[in-house]
Amino acid sequence: MNSSPFLSQHPGRDDIISAHERVGFYAHRTPLLSSTYLNSILECNLFLKCENFQKAGAFKFRGASNVVMGLSENFLNNGVATHSSGNHAGALALAAKLRGTRAYIVMPETAPKIKVKAVQAYGAEIIFCKPNQKAREDTLNDIVNKTGALFIHPYDNYSIIAGQATAAKEILEEKSDLDFIFTPVGGGGLASGTCLSANYFSKRTKVIGCEPAGADDAFHSLKDGKIYPSLNPKTIADGLLTSLSPKTFEILSELLERVITVSEEEIIYIMRLIWERMKIIIEPSSAVPVAALYKERQFFKGKNVAVIISGGNVDLDNLPWNS
Amino acid sequence: MNSSPFLSQHPGRDDIISAHERVGFYAHRTPLLSSTYLNSILECNLFLKCENFQKAGAFKFRGASNVVMGLSENFLNNGVATHSSGNHAGALALAAKLRGTRAYIVMPETAPKIKVKAVQAYGAEIIFCKPNQKAREDTLNDIVNKTGALFIHPYDNYSIIAGQATAAKEILEEKSDLDFIFTPVGGGGLASGTCLSANYFSKRTKVIGCEPAGADDAFHSLKDGKIYPSLNPKTIADGLLTSLSPKTFEILSELLERVITVSEEEIIYIMRLIWERMKIIIEPSSAVPVAALYKERQFFKGKNVAVIISGGNVDLDNLPWNS
Repeated sequence: MNSSPFLSQHPGRDDIISAHERVGFYAHRTPLLSSTYLNSILECNLFLKCENFQKAGAFKFRGASNVVMGLSENFLNNGVATHSSGNHAGALALAAKLRGTRAYIVMPETAPKIKVKAVQAYGAEIIFCKPNQKAREDTLNDIVNKTGALFIHPYDNYSIIAGQATAAKEILEEKSDLDFIFTPVGGGGLASGTCLSANYFSKRTKVIGCEPAGADDAFHSLKDGKIYPSLNPKTIADGLLTSLSPKTFEILSELLERVITVSEEEIIYIMRLIWERMKIIIEPSSAVPVAALYKERQFFKGKNVAVIISGGNVDLDNLPWNS
Repeated sequence: MNSSPFLSQHPGRDDIISAHERVGFYAHRTPLLSSTYLNSILECNLFLKCENFQKAGAFKFRGASNVVMGLSENFLNNGVATHSSGNHAGALALAAKLRGTRAYIVMPETAPKIKVKAVQAYGAEIIFCKPNQKAREDTLNDIVNKTGALFIHPYDNYSIIAGQATAAKEILEEKSDLDFIFTPVGGGGLASGTCLSANYFSKRTKVIGCEPAGADDAFHSLKDGKIYPSLNPKTIADGLLTSLSPKTFEILSELLERVITVSEEEIIYIMRLIWERMKIIIEPSSAVPVAALYKERQFFKGKNVAVIISGGNVDLDNLPWNS
């Protein structure tokens, strides 16, 4: 095994620029949409960066393609591996397929069928495990030992973070006068990348992290200055169940302006409002930052605000307002 | 009462150009989206003209704004009126609101709550009637007699047709090498306008009309050369229940290439596929032309095809795959 093929430190300005050159070749440059109606109820100038239209339906393809397309052949001989029940799984499977290498995805046996089907459709090999963190990690270690595949962590990886940073870079290329960017916070990969891009490409733009109140580990971790695990999170925002990692905690501690938390009712209300008014499909995790802006709109009156709509992978048989 | 303020004949090239200048000022220039996945299963180069993102959620705002914004003051003194349970109601209500005049909308008492709410939100006055054609017309006549409002028919009106033609004009401005445009056919306003624009702006582009098999009055009317009423139509494509009118029948008889009909299962399959794959919300009527293309894809292999996605107004509490 060679030494790590990933960025070894905090991505710099040039790392993000070169990530964008690579990612831009494979990923969609997603549109920045606005809505007169949303502007009127939010009382600001809102721009939605639509990563729900991204390949594999979520921003995760940016990080995955940055890593997989950037690896030299010798790291790819035995394929790539990860554990994920969600969008990172699909993104890594697609990136591996495009690169022509194998992907091994450890998924909990309780993963939604629609996500399992997507990963299968991209030709990845799925290994099911019990739905807990230890089983995931043990199963992944087994697979890596057996196959020699390269483990690609969904967010505790600076090359992944540099890839996720490209969404905010694109926003700032189109809107140079942004006051704020709101992002959801799960493991912190997207939020970290967004903070780095704002820091390098638009000093005036502050980044706000947004969490469900039922999974508010990042809020407490950043307040208290230490990583709390996400214990027994309860939220329909299934992309935001994980806790921060050493690498994302370090970046967010330095650069994130603040965290806003929202209730399940606020998430569902905004998710439905965006479906009805904008006619776009967003997943619950993507409604979290818009709900946060709505909740605290008095502080953002008249501001230019972008929100990263993280993804659009939703089980249409199981919508929150039909349950 | 003055003589009619509407175009008195078949819109000409210049009528559509001036309609576009007017409509373009008030309506969104909606995007033309494509999907690698859809191209692969349809085996052609498909472009979706996303009128689901149009103001009031459907192409109908083009016709309504062309008429309402083009009227001189004296025709507007007493407001405008129509009967509609659907998208024309919302579009006319919004156009009237923007123009600062009253709108009277006759709606069947069975109209979906979401459409009633939309019309109310635009400040129109709703008059409910029994859900049959005679009650609609009688109630409308009463309102027009009582208020002096100007009746704006949803499609048997050349100025409305000229407005609907602007969607295809925009498509042809962006794609000059289109082989086909597919549109849904209900009353035929959109299909007629599309035929006129193709005829004036891109001779090589043929227009295909698409209908649910459960509401195939246009198919039979055009085959037999006489207008059949739409008797007891049965389809979830709630925008396509009406029959052709003298004005739309005349234009379609001359210019429409052919009609393709599709089953309810085909409509629902394609509607869901577009939601899942493209992450956009389209209503059942909009799935009809994509389903028609899918059904007869062997005839359109390798062609450049645009489909007009007519609207995105869907009752999220009542989705076809949840019933």
